[in-house]
Amino acid sequence: MGLIVQKFGGTSVGSVERIQNVARRVIQEKQNGHDVVVVVSAMGKTTDELVSLAQQITDQPSKREMDMLLMTGEQVTISLLTMALQQMDQDAISFTGWQAGMRTEAVHGNARISSIEPIRIQNALKEGKVVVVAGFQGMTEQAELTTLGRGGSDTTAVALAAALEADRCDIYTDVTGVYTTDPRYVAKARKLSQISYDEMLELAHLGAGVLHPRAVEYAKNYDVTLEVRSSMVEEEGTKIKEEAEMEQNLVVRGVAFEKDITRVTVRGPKAQWSGISSIFSLLAKHFINVDIIIQSLTEKEEASVSFSIKSEDLEEVQSILKTAENEIGFTGLELESGLAKVSIVGSGMASNPGVAAQMFDVLTENGMVIKMVSTSEIKVSTVIDEHDMLRAAGVLHTAFGLDMFVEETV
Amino acid sequence: MGLIVQKFGGTSVGSVERIQNVARRVIQEKQNGHDVVVVVSAMGKTTDELVSLAQQITDQPSKREMDMLLMTGEQVTISLLTMALQQMDQDAISFTGWQAGMRTEAVHGNARISSIEPIRIQNALKEGKVVVVAGFQGMTEQAELTTLGRGGSDTTAVALAAALEADRCDIYTDVTGVYTTDPRYVAKARKLSQISYDEMLELAHLGAGVLHPRAVEYAKNYDVTLEVRSSMVEEEGTKIKEEAEMEQNLVVRGVAFEKDITRVTVRGPKAQWSGISSIFSLLAKHFINVDIIIQSLTEKEEASVSFSIKSEDLEEVQSILKTAENEIGFTGLELESGLAKVSIVGSGMASNPGVAAQMFDVLTENGMVIKMVSTSEIKVSTVIDEHDMLRAAGVLHTAFGLDMFVEETV
Repeated sequence: MGLIVQKFGGTSVGSVERIQNVARRVIQEKQNGHDVVVVVSAMGKTTDELVSLAQQITDQPSKREMDMLLMTGEQVTISLLTMALQQMDQDAISFTGWQAGMRTEAVHGNARISSIEPIRIQNALKEGKVVVVAGFQGMTEQAELTTLGRGGSDTTAVALAAALEADRCDIYTDVTGVYTTDPRYVAKARKLSQISYDEMLELAHLGAGVLHPRAVEYAKNYDVTLEVRSSMVEEEGTKIKEEAEMEQNLVVRGVAFEKDITRVTVRGPKAQWSGISSIFSLLAKHFINVDIIIQSLTEKEEASVSFSIKSEDLEEVQSILKTAENEIGFTGLELESGLAKVSIVGSGMASNPGVAAQMFDVLTENGMVIKMVSTSEIKVSTVIDEHDMLRAAGVLHTAFGLDMFVEETV
Repeated sequence: MGLIVQKFGGTSVGSVERIQNVARRVIQEKQNGHDVVVVVSAMGKTTDELVSLAQQITDQPSKREMDMLLMTGEQVTISLLTMALQQMDQDAISFTGWQAGMRTEAVHGNARISSIEPIRIQNALKEGKVVVVAGFQGMTEQAELTTLGRGGSDTTAVALAAALEADRCDIYTDVTGVYTTDPRYVAKARKLSQISYDEMLELAHLGAGVLHPRAVEYAKNYDVTLEVRSSMVEEEGTKIKEEAEMEQNLVVRGVAFEKDITRVTVRGPKAQWSGISSIFSLLAKHFINVDIIIQSLTEKEEASVSFSIKSEDLEEVQSILKTAENEIGFTGLELESGLAKVSIVGSGMASNPGVAAQMFDVLTENGMVIKMVSTSEIKVSTVIDEHDMLRAAGVLHTAFGLDMFVEETV
């Protein structure tokens, strides 16, 4: 008998039938004797449709009004899911984010949670009700409505689990768990039964897309044990917690990859070139996400910096740099598209210095050219040709022993 | 320089283009030097679509969850209209009903406004902003979200106009004003430049459909001058106020009609039959709207009561009566469908006793059979054969001088 927070994403509530399925899952946990709080996203493509309405009116909507618009999506889902639960004779009640007590900082579009006052949730639970909460949304102290940005419903679920001291926080999604690599592209991918917060953070940042990094950070900070599992298939998912057990002492726990990467190289007039820093503040001002940055400073009279961006940002980056050509004072600009990033992640890496070298060896032996490298305590990322991406993921998966370790198979 | 409350209904904000048109109208008033508060409904068919989603889940949705669901419609409109205003360089801000300070009693689906605390609206107006408010919705003292029921956005607009002591409350709709009769069916209908609250109330109740009765009542109680006008066409509408000027001293101001009426006649065993009252309490319990009631109590050993209902309720009424046959103890049940109600309305009637008689004469002279009659201070309603309805409206329109009075023509 405990308290469980369940989160269902947009795909899991994408139709009336799926909402009814979710209701059945919720009732199952309730019948197991647990109290249940359910956090839901907007139905399927609702958010995209709302964004498209706004875009028909303006290409620069105010963030406040976008929040006002988008949060209606979750509100529709909470009412429908609550009706479905009631129809199945389960007492239930819906709350918007602000009714559930989600207080955020005074920022629109991407607010952080500042506090949670879940009194209404606790009262409803005491009355035996299932509580259905709109994810993604909150309210400031001035009663302004805000949203938590991308992945916000994950964050709502984790934050509520922390505030309510829930025994479990289950993130239901359209995959069955966290895999050693993307099972849609690499057949030998295996599901991990456990993974640590830090590993998940790297994987989340690397585009594995199962869980939003902010939600993982929140879970880490408040020590909330997450489980990522499928809303369609009945099977164990992947537990995310502080110390993941590694039965086979695997150094590398996952291989992540991401295509559509462009490398930008900017050359300056001399080694002590001050323009470099203004490049990145300019790009930041335009909300361009710069990933890997490599600066080579030699004794020669020329400096250069390379950085990777998403290819979709290429045109904008070019125009930003061209416009600021005088300010930056660069002497050369080179662009290489058609690249991909392949990364290995694992907590064990920190104490195994040879891992990066082994990765480079494997890629080079397989005839791949490494264009950029970036490392952290628990990951190594390389940028290579896009057409090598999946093959690289495959050979790394094998080389680091992920094909064969003893866990559940796909 | 004054304060104007404008209300735009679902058709007027039914598409992005129409929302942009509304924005232009609002800016026009702003440029005339007025402060503007805009109240909007959900876009076009949004409410129907949301209702249909709920119906796919349950045929008895909880009223609380229906409120939660339906109020998202207005929230979408306020954000889009505000974006449109901002895109046209007009500073603007949107508020949900509860943010605008609409407090209601603790009833779902059809709440009445209990108080208004429009502080945020007033502050935003002081900053020169156009304020866009979601109609139809409010919040209880317990922070439960409620809706005001059918026609709720009209009520929101009138209530805000009263609370803000607005100089005008303009109700924009898909017709150009209030007519002497329905211009869609009777070509000689003329637009009234003014009409009194009471006359409008009778017309509203009689199905003219331009304004919700509750909104008119509210306007009457708080002495808010309304103007009904078209959101599509630029022309004067109809003013609704306490004392409408009647240039030509017209006794009858309008002819209303409504089809799909059924007359139900129930016969009891004797004159002192107690079952009659239980009929109406039973029907009320099932939310059946009974309109005209006629009871004839003669000295004979038999009593009967006739009442009119909407034909769509016929099946349910039959089943309710059959089920309670023993309780009511009736001895006969007669039904007559295919009927219509034709009514004349005018404040001058109260002091002109011959009006009802004149109406019966006109109908009889034209070969129509009057099945039921009901009168009030300012209206006379008759039930006649449905196929006579439009012809009856036409001859009454002529007989009471409405074809030719000097006002704006259609």
